[in-house]
Amino acid sequence: MAIQSAQIRVSTDGDGDIVDITRGVQEIVETTGISDGAVNVFVAHSTAAVTLMEYEPGGVQDLQDLLERLVPRGADYNHNRTAGDTNAHAHLRAAVIGPSEVVPIKGGRLLTGTWQQIVLVDFDDRPRERTVMVQVVG
Amino acid sequence: MAIQSAQIRVSTDGDGDIVDITRGVQEIVETTGISDGAVNVFVAHSTAAVTLMEYEPGGVQDLQDLLERLVPRGADYNHNRTAGDTNAHAHLRAAVIGPSEVVPIKGGRLLTGTWQQIVLVDFDDRPRERTVMVQVVG
Amino acid sequence: MAIQSAQIRVSTDGDGDIVDITRGVQEIVETTGISDGAVNVFVAHSTAAVTLMEYEPGGVQDLQDLLERLVPRGADYNHNRTAGDTNAHAHLRAAVIGPSEVVPIKGGRLLTGTWQQIVLVDFDDRPRERTVMVQVVG
Repeated sequence: MAIQSAQIRVSTDGDGDIVDITRGVQEIVETTGISDGAVNVFVAHSTAAVTLMEYEPGGVQDLQDLLERLVPRGADYNHNRTAGDTNAHAHLRAAVIGPSEVVPIKGGRLLTGTWQQIVLVDFDDRPRERTVMVQVVG
Repeated sequence: MAIQSAQIRVSTDGDGDIVDITRGVQEIVETTGISDGAVNVFVAHSTAAVTLMEYEPGGVQDLQDLLERLVPRGADYNHNRTAGDTNAHAHLRAAVIGPSEVVPIKGGRLLTGTWQQIVLVDFDDRPRERTVMVQVVG
Repeated sequence: MAIQSAQIRVSTDGDGDIVDITRGVQEIVETTGISDGAVNVFVAHSTAAVTLMEYEPGGVQDLQDLLERLVPRGADYNHNRTAGDTNAHAHLRAAVIGPSEVVPIKGGRLLTGTWQQIVLVDFDDRPRERTVMVQVVG
């Protein structure tokens, strides 16, 4: 058994941008040559998150709308007031969704569902360059 | 060290059905013979999720009520309109809760709390046959 | 490769108390001597959760306020009525946030972002002694 780590660099539009990183994760799995095991996908930023979803335009818009309704950008937040910042909503959404998911691998393929993609969600209020850590164990 | 994978098949009622899969995960842990390590529990469907909770009827109903209040089934969703679908709420709830949790094992036992069970939550709007991946490492 | 497990004991104030456990996790990573790998952080209680966030007073208060707004302590819950309990809101919040996160390690250091700390959130309605499981693999 071994654990091998790599990174995916993602340019996002911020502002709730949802990026499908499934192909990038799959390519790293193949590069490692690990056939059976699992992959940890982790984003090292406090205003972004990793989850899985069906990546289609309607559902992407629905998730953005939902988070805007539950955690509105324009509400009165302590973080914005005390830190002179404008992205408190991004911090909150990221803490609720979480930065990591662990996905099984079999025969060198991600064992995700047909309509299930691995996504990076960037909640920050401006375009960002993001690094996603991908760790394959097996 | 080794990683061993197995599956649990679960028949759900859909519609927010919450199924306690702790025993199934524990049995797989025992079958592997791995004494100390961790287990990744993952559902490969975009309308279901895995989490941990106290599995008792009141709390199960509370979680179903909460998610219906925050992410109502009957709201107007793009996914339903563009895909002619009826389960947009299920996709959203699954993306927020997430498909994976990693639970420690010691002495061949899940290190969960006394009132903490591993559950599969099926948000889809009809009964489903679900496959849960269980991966034991140690 | 090996997997090594340790525990962090945390005294919390309950009631949504958020405790930064990053240093404790980092110290365990160093004790294991594992340089490259990952760490699973897991709380074995159904009224507490683990996530990552920027640990600063404004953001901590914002997260507490958000969860009070979305999952109010004083609402009418079945768990409280049937179990004669007072912490149904704590169970719900914990099930949504989740008990585990897996964080990469490189060169013996947690690969977290500069403004990203690992936190234990204790939603229970009274002070508690909590045990956090920390498992280092690499």
